[in-house]
Amino acid sequence: MKSVGIRTMALVAVSSIVLANSAWASDPLPSWNEGDTKDAIVKFVETVTDTDSPNFVPVAERIATFDNDGTLWSEQPMYFQLQFALDRIKALAPTHPNWQTEEPFASVLKGDIKNLHTEDLIKVLYATHAGMNTEEFDAIVKDWIATAKHPITGKKYPQMVFQPMLELLDYLRANDFKTFIVSGGGSGFMRAWVETVYGIPPEQVVGSTFKTEYVLNDGNPEIIRQPEILVNNDKEMKAMEIYERIGRRPIAAFGNSDGDLAMLQWTYAGKGVRFPMYIHHTDEKREYSYDRESQIGRLDKGLDEAKAKNWTVVDMAKDWKMIYPK
Amino acid sequence: MKSVGIRTMALVAVSSIVLANSAWASDPLPSWNEGDTKDAIVKFVETVTDTDSPNFVPVAERIATFDNDGTLWSEQPMYFQLQFALDRIKALAPTHPNWQTEEPFASVLKGDIKNLHTEDLIKVLYATHAGMNTEEFDAIVKDWIATAKHPITGKKYPQMVFQPMLELLDYLRANDFKTFIVSGGGSGFMRAWVETVYGIPPEQVVGSTFKTEYVLNDGNPEIIRQPEILVNNDKEMKAMEIYERIGRRPIAAFGNSDGDLAMLQWTYAGKGVRFPMYIHHTDEKREYSYDRESQIGRLDKGLDEAKAKNWTVVDMAKDWKMIYPK
Repeated sequence: MKSVGIRTMALVAVSSIVLANSAWASDPLPSWNEGDTKDAIVKFVETVTDTDSPNFVPVAERIATFDNDGTLWSEQPMYFQLQFALDRIKALAPTHPNWQTEEPFASVLKGDIKNLHTEDLIKVLYATHAGMNTEEFDAIVKDWIATAKHPITGKKYPQMVFQPMLELLDYLRANDFKTFIVSGGGSGFMRAWVETVYGIPPEQVVGSTFKTEYVLNDGNPEIIRQPEILVNNDKEMKAMEIYERIGRRPIAAFGNSDGDLAMLQWTYAGKGVRFPMYIHHTDEKREYSYDRESQIGRLDKGLDEAKAKNWTVVDMAKDWKMIYPK
Repeated sequence: MKSVGIRTMALVAVSSIVLANSAWASDPLPSWNEGDTKDAIVKFVETVTDTDSPNFVPVAERIATFDNDGTLWSEQPMYFQLQFALDRIKALAPTHPNWQTEEPFASVLKGDIKNLHTEDLIKVLYATHAGMNTEEFDAIVKDWIATAKHPITGKKYPQMVFQPMLELLDYLRANDFKTFIVSGGGSGFMRAWVETVYGIPPEQVVGSTFKTEYVLNDGNPEIIRQPEILVNNDKEMKAMEIYERIGRRPIAAFGNSDGDLAMLQWTYAGKGVRFPMYIHHTDEKREYSYDRESQIGRLDKGLDEAKAKNWTVVDMAKDWKMIYPK
């Protein structure tokens, strides 16, 4: 009897493993609730990877582009890159005594940023993102991302990426998609950490860029970041930069704001089955709730166009079992 | 005896296959003559891929960048993209009757291009590279590359790529390098054919770019090429564009002119073992011979720096068994 008991336990254990494996195989998106949104994603991936389907897409053309702020990680109460810039002003203040009285730095140092205008923010960006070589900037961002904490959640920023979107990235790559970031965030800022956090290599990051200068320093070449934004990778520019840098039209694109609308339009307008998807921030309890009236990540025209064209819209509160990784 | 004969033949056949395989395995660069140049390439690849070597480089960082004109294919008597533009002027002439008398088009149509200045050539470029949407331009280039012939060799242009460099691309990729083009040629021009010809996908092409505009045509988005060069991807710009677009410093870079010097310097200055290589056009008989005095592909400062820093320089006449694919 004893041996039968052990045998039974062994069988149960084996069954559990088998079940767990098939559950994983049948559900590559465990943090997504069952429903239309999840079904739409899976149906799209299955049809474009099915060689018997009229919608089959060769591997080389399986390009998927993702916005970053508000799509792969949170963006409230302000873009995290702006938070980086403000933190950096504080870190640099001891060597810039004039900032105690010089605006907009004085306000930033007092934590009084509500009245800063766009031109003030640009001054803050230039003071923190330019004037060093590219490797120095990379090290500064890496240090910040490893240590800084979000002012409200107290989490480190890489802990504020969306678990369901990490699964979606993995799911697409497991189906031979090449995943790109196409974001208004700075290329240099994102490249310092996205490979580790999202599994997206630097060469698949299309972001806003600063002017640079190539200088020979005692014969040693350096690329120095300049205080001038060269490409503001937002709205129509996203579609144009996809052409300039990727050179292939995506078959899937993911965004959360009107700044992503052109990228989704451009993706949708290609031949064959296309998957443009919006993330709608509807979860005041677990994250944030905002759309048409928001200063950050405004989603207004995009929401109308998604409805008119029957694009998939993620309802965060309803579609996501969890927001952040545990 | 008969059966023994068959057996012997079978053994001979098997031996031939084994020999052929080991020949391939031991010589991934069959069109390269034995000597220092070939040895330097193989030694570099072996050391950076050897996990026991202090010079080992992880796969993700095995970035190799290639200039195109004069490095992967010929560039004489003029850049092939310029030849495309001239051919295109002729093709478009019937619908542009004013070109018969309007310069620089009248001279181009007469085949009298010796006296054209840079500003004339830019007019020719704008008349042939702008004013259409991105997919129309792609189709125009694909059609040209499939049919047009070089005025001197009579070969189609994709037959004027360098066989030894095709082998080098394959060899690097077989060793998990990611191969990029970083060229002064136009991104849109190159992407129309480099995937087929070099096995380099569009997203790994960094070229010069034209301004574009995103327009909604009856709700259908189009990206229209504009008559304005946005990035002239030459000299220092190559290093800066490697930063902007690839975001990772190459460990190997291949060029043939002073326009590639910054790319090679930037590559060489990185930490660890680096492989900057120049192609020196020394083969008047099989291709062309030119360097310090040439208008196209001038190699002057680069030749001095290569010597000073002991970079590998390919002597085409000496190092290459063949130039073009058979």
